[in-house]
Amino acid sequence: MNDLELIKEYENQLKAYDLALSTIYFDHQTIAPKAGIEYRLSCLDVIEKTYYDIKTDDKIYEALQRLSKQELSELDKRRVKLLLKSFDDTKKIPSDIYLEYRRLQNEAALTWEKAKNTNDYALFEPYLLKIIEMTKTLCHYRDPNADPYELLLDDYEEGMTIEKYDEFFDLIKQKLIPLIQKIQQKQIIDDSILHGYFSVDKQRQVMEIIKEYLGFDASWGYMSEYMHPFTNALSNNDVRITTFYRENDLCDSIFSVIHEIGHATYEHQMDMENQGTVLHRVSSGLHESQSRLFENYLGRSYHFWDKLFIKLKDIFKDELKDIDQDTFVKAINKSNCSLIRTMADELTYPIHILIRYEMEKAIFHDEIKLNDLNKVWNKYYEDYLHVKPDSDTNGILQDVHWADGSFGYFPTYALGSAYSAQFMAKMREELDVDDLLSKGRMDIINKWLKDNIHQYQNNIAPREIFLKTCKKDFDPNYYIEYLCDKYTKLYELENVA
Amino acid sequence: MNDLELIKEYENQLKAYDLALSTIYFDHQTIAPKAGIEYRLSCLDVIEKTYYDIKTDDKIYEALQRLSKQELSELDKRRVKLLLKSFDDTKKIPSDIYLEYRRLQNEAALTWEKAKNTNDYALFEPYLLKIIEMTKTLCHYRDPNADPYELLLDDYEEGMTIEKYDEFFDLIKQKLIPLIQKIQQKQIIDDSILHGYFSVDKQRQVMEIIKEYLGFDASWGYMSEYMHPFTNALSNNDVRITTFYRENDLCDSIFSVIHEIGHATYEHQMDMENQGTVLHRVSSGLHESQSRLFENYLGRSYHFWDKLFIKLKDIFKDELKDIDQDTFVKAINKSNCSLIRTMADELTYPIHILIRYEMEKAIFHDEIKLNDLNKVWNKYYEDYLHVKPDSDTNGILQDVHWADGSFGYFPTYALGSAYSAQFMAKMREELDVDDLLSKGRMDIINKWLKDNIHQYQNNIAPREIFLKTCKKDFDPNYYIEYLCDKYTKLYELENVA
Repeated sequence: MNDLELIKEYENQLKAYDLALSTIYFDHQTIAPKAGIEYRLSCLDVIEKTYYDIKTDDKIYEALQRLSKQELSELDKRRVKLLLKSFDDTKKIPSDIYLEYRRLQNEAALTWEKAKNTNDYALFEPYLLKIIEMTKTLCHYRDPNADPYELLLDDYEEGMTIEKYDEFFDLIKQKLIPLIQKIQQKQIIDDSILHGYFSVDKQRQVMEIIKEYLGFDASWGYMSEYMHPFTNALSNNDVRITTFYRENDLCDSIFSVIHEIGHATYEHQMDMENQGTVLHRVSSGLHESQSRLFENYLGRSYHFWDKLFIKLKDIFKDELKDIDQDTFVKAINKSNCSLIRTMADELTYPIHILIRYEMEKAIFHDEIKLNDLNKVWNKYYEDYLHVKPDSDTNGILQDVHWADGSFGYFPTYALGSAYSAQFMAKMREELDVDDLLSKGRMDIINKWLKDNIHQYQNNIAPREIFLKTCKKDFDPNYYIEYLCDKYTKLYELENVA
Repeated sequence: MNDLELIKEYENQLKAYDLALSTIYFDHQTIAPKAGIEYRLSCLDVIEKTYYDIKTDDKIYEALQRLSKQELSELDKRRVKLLLKSFDDTKKIPSDIYLEYRRLQNEAALTWEKAKNTNDYALFEPYLLKIIEMTKTLCHYRDPNADPYELLLDDYEEGMTIEKYDEFFDLIKQKLIPLIQKIQQKQIIDDSILHGYFSVDKQRQVMEIIKEYLGFDASWGYMSEYMHPFTNALSNNDVRITTFYRENDLCDSIFSVIHEIGHATYEHQMDMENQGTVLHRVSSGLHESQSRLFENYLGRSYHFWDKLFIKLKDIFKDELKDIDQDTFVKAINKSNCSLIRTMADELTYPIHILIRYEMEKAIFHDEIKLNDLNKVWNKYYEDYLHVKPDSDTNGILQDVHWADGSFGYFPTYALGSAYSAQFMAKMREELDVDDLLSKGRMDIINKWLKDNIHQYQNNIAPREIFLKTCKKDFDPNYYIEYLCDKYTKLYELENVA
């Protein structure tokens, strides 16, 4: 076997374990009986250990080293680079520490679930502190001289740094916070119609029409239920999403499903050739650009509902009796400072992320005391959004991400939203998006996304996709202008942009 | 590490892979999108290969050999004996042949599913022939001098031989076939009420009350849907069952769920200590004795319905309006020569198994031409049950077992039914079963089963459980007498036993 073949075989091994682990985790989160957790975790310890051993085989490292000095195709060069990084990031960590961390992630996520359900931050706090500490330790192993938060940011979005994010969030603060304040004072949109009683059975019917409209097909996509919506791609043709139903909220499940289908479509539309490999492991910001594009730029637009609204009314005959499409679309775009990120409107959403970014930065720069982080959280919400969490469930416990150690991930949510603004502008130059939505031609929109974004996979860095597709670098002003323009009109304000 | 510790570690590894593979297969059968199959199979190849390597590690074989010559506790002696057998059975097969067989099992099962759905035996036939051929090859590797069917029978029921099964089935032929014929001529029970329209939604509600009555609790048990009902225990506290709904049949799902909960309760009630190991791998006959006991000896008895019938009528208000408990219980016990094993009544059921036993024996003794096995199947049904399959879907394609290579398994279904008659007789000596059912005290019945059967796990051979619990060896006459007595009364016949 030559080195490239050896690497191929290595990737085959990793793919298989990825699939096994993903299946177990998906099963665990959606259906597995709770009392079986301990046994399952002990089995996971064994599988994770083998996975670690395969991942950090010295023979592979030597082959990767040799390959990195050879003439290779652009794609293989990229593959070797990404594998080396992933190898390094794992191998530098002693195996017992690595496996302890994996175990901790599982246990912390379980504890988080309990703590969130019972509004018991004290239960979760020791896990949070431990996972922060261990994440720092891991970063130290990876590079004792690096700023740990820089390492984490780059993990989730190649090329992003604190400097760049600071600049990005400064722009958000500067431009959006004044707009949000104006809108808060001018509440002219009534969305109470979205907060009546909507039975879970009927909501499930709505999901069927949305899946069909977006082309999320049962032959390759499966939808289940979990308290925290997510997408899990086992392969191009096996993409799972979850959602969560609230009977007093019509739109939460609708937009979370549209969002997850954005992720799912990305996974489904990459080439089959390199599925399961590092070349499919798209950056979080890019991934989020597609889910946000679906959720907001398409899903909250008027024409998205041209075909769907009548079907929605058909399901909720009484509930939506007195409402027309225009009122509905206004209601689903209402901006309101609120507590829950996943339910936030498009305009206040980045502020939720800003809060998490500032907290994470402070945590990893040791500029914050770690006890009572829940109170710090609440203070941030009061300062930036002028709302005070009524419970830790609706405060620091709302998201799973810190429980599973995903520090540095949140910032990509705002970044992805900004990415999609620029992609959308480009798409609108080339396609009559409103007309296509009106006609239900998501196939054409999906093809555009495939040709202009999805096909590049992780074959090139995010920045290069902008250069190819938009013919210019990423520019957050698209996002700011889009939001200012949209909300200025919606709230009949004088131009603030 | 001493040898026993080494074996413990070995079992830990196997347990983890068993859990991973079980999860993937369960997911695959119940929810995984179809288009992802190819990728999933390629990943399974990798996992199965590692599993094989772990399973057949020479170091372990040497340790087991050494241990088999040492003084050990009874339990460890049993453990070592079972592990050595399992080790031998795998290790004697060259790894490429073993893995090819595993792949073939997966592909044949998939093809069977398609073939059954489209009534296309020609599609499945090459897979069936291939899997028969490979099963023979595997047996030859395991022991070139053995009768392959003897090997297979012993795999599923330790200690059972062709001679013993011949004797068992001869008794069935001799005693039951005349009774069946008499009953066929005296059709005095009308079960048309069970074959109206029963919506799947309402049937699902019925399952909830049955699960509750039997103590199948969501904290440790999960129910899903699949075309072929099965039980899959990932651990004591993670037992999954499946069922299948037919809208024109009220009882198919009810009795399949009661049946699977019998299996599930067995798995749940073994000790936690050795879960996932060979000591939990109970023989098929014993396992089936518990599912049959639930399904027939409890589920089809009058008092099982004392608490449930009123709830059933409550769900099917119109459908069961004019029927009382007595009529219902008679209807669910109607005997009728039919085509489908899983839907067969208690009396004709062993004849379905007899057919499979005779076919398997002929196949593995090369006494049958392998082309047109579907026609052979039909001939058997005409000869023994006087019914002619209207399609291969309702003929040879009805069961998955041959597709996954489980030859020698079917006979344990009749054997298990016979086991349960004897267990039930013992239980009735010690408990007032009817009274307990009437009061909904399945907890006491389950405890009896735990104390008298489940607790022994695979710690001792099936025969020894009879000696302990029934104070005598297995005796099929309990079964024959039970059936003759029950059906003689039910059909108001003169005594034939």
